[in-house]
Amino acid sequence: MSAAPPLSRLSVNQETIKQWSLPELAEGCAKEGVTSVGLWRAPVQAYGVERAARLMRESGLAVTSLCRGGFLTDTAGAARARALDDNRAAIDEAAALGADTLVLVSGGLPPGSKDLAGARERIADGLALLGPYAEERSVRLAIEPLHPMFASDRCVVSTLGQALDLAERFPARQVGVVVDTYHVWWDDQAPAQIARAGAGGRLHAFQLADWITPLPAGVLLGRGQLGDGCVDFRAFRDLVDAAGYDGPIEVEIFNEALWERDGGEVLRETAERFRTHA
Amino acid sequence: MSAAPPLSRLSVNQETIKQWSLPELAEGCAKEGVTSVGLWRAPVQAYGVERAARLMRESGLAVTSLCRGGFLTDTAGAARARALDDNRAAIDEAAALGADTLVLVSGGLPPGSKDLAGARERIADGLALLGPYAEERSVRLAIEPLHPMFASDRCVVSTLGQALDLAERFPARQVGVVVDTYHVWWDDQAPAQIARAGAGGRLHAFQLADWITPLPAGVLLGRGQLGDGCVDFRAFRDLVDAAGYDGPIEVEIFNEALWERDGGEVLRETAERFRTHA
Repeated sequence: MSAAPPLSRLSVNQETIKQWSLPELAEGCAKEGVTSVGLWRAPVQAYGVERAARLMRESGLAVTSLCRGGFLTDTAGAARARALDDNRAAIDEAAALGADTLVLVSGGLPPGSKDLAGARERIADGLALLGPYAEERSVRLAIEPLHPMFASDRCVVSTLGQALDLAERFPARQVGVVVDTYHVWWDDQAPAQIARAGAGGRLHAFQLADWITPLPAGVLLGRGQLGDGCVDFRAFRDLVDAAGYDGPIEVEIFNEALWERDGGEVLRETAERFRTHA
Repeated sequence: MSAAPPLSRLSVNQETIKQWSLPELAEGCAKEGVTSVGLWRAPVQAYGVERAARLMRESGLAVTSLCRGGFLTDTAGAARARALDDNRAAIDEAAALGADTLVLVSGGLPPGSKDLAGARERIADGLALLGPYAEERSVRLAIEPLHPMFASDRCVVSTLGQALDLAERFPARQVGVVVDTYHVWWDDQAPAQIARAGAGGRLHAFQLADWITPLPAGVLLGRGQLGDGCVDFRAFRDLVDAAGYDGPIEVEIFNEALWERDGGEVLRETAERFRTHA
């Protein structure tokens, strides 16, 4: 089994410690020796994009990813145009933050639709427009397959295989994929698809969260702290290592129990769990 | 698009109208012209297996499937021996009811385990013991892949592909698969795997339930009445038709809102939805 990764590879996604403001996150990471974070658009916008970028720079924090673009499955012209504009804004924000990866949550089925294949094609149409725009700004679009339980209302891309089928229609410098253990841990095809992503230079981000049950209503906030569930993180790290991935390992957990605790305590625990399990 | 299937192909799983006793189910089906049912072991055992078999015979109802055997992933010797005994009892009960198909829910990860591949191998070990026992009693074991959201706590077999990888180690007259739209609707590999199941004579049961959101806590009772969600049932029926399946089409919905309504009304609605959507 591989050794624990150095703390320098840990990136803490801000949603893991949602109770913290951006300055609290910057200060907390400095205290704990964490040098990278993943950010979300809404809190960054609320704080101010340029101001957030300055805060990160001055705190010596690298922004490894911005969440999220996507939601490209609408059929109606106006909604679609809005989605494309919003993705261009997300790319600009990623560039301003110095984040080289914009995570895409592709979108679910439009109301009343049962056409998964059609929705996936509209994602491809969107990527064709957004890929060059992103490349010009040195941002890579990273399709994140979400667990199949989100297929109807959040993301019709449910597996790494599907994500790569989409990504491979475009240059790797424009479109790749995210491997998030929470979404793909159950999939016996994931190992082969991780190798495929690595071989194609499309493994743009690696995120960790554990799978715990029972799932809460709505299932969005059911992620577990590393080690609390049944995901074999070391096995996944071995797979991404073997695929040539040497980038940040981002911990992204949505869990109300974590949000109710002291942020510093959650960050310390996350760093410890990272050393033990990642 | 195909025509609506005749009502003679509808089988109503008793859990869809859980508020009904077995005699109420028999009477209600007679009134509605429904000629087949799927049964569950607990209510059948509570009523008495032989007595239930007689009631079904006297009511002219075919029992198209019995739920459920399985839970074959335990590692401990005693738990494993109990699981095998319980599966033999389930096979005997299916035979007594004249049901040719025993649905298997394979089991989740044992407590503390992260080894999905190992759990899947223990299912194979169990099937090797149970297959011949089932065949002697003219019962087919049907592996039901459950949605990946159940992979940790209920069923480590998450896709039709995985189910067939397991089933194909055994004769088709012993082990096949269940296609339940609720569990596989999201999977772009399902069409190819349905064809594979049909070609191998392993498509042993076809079940319908719709996918609706938001999912309730625990996610077990989140299934929707046909037409209330985003599953394209006619597309799935075309796939099983093309795979040579001409057996019963079983509606199996676990939904507390349906259970609170009048059973006769739910059965009528189910038959109507079947004609419109199946």
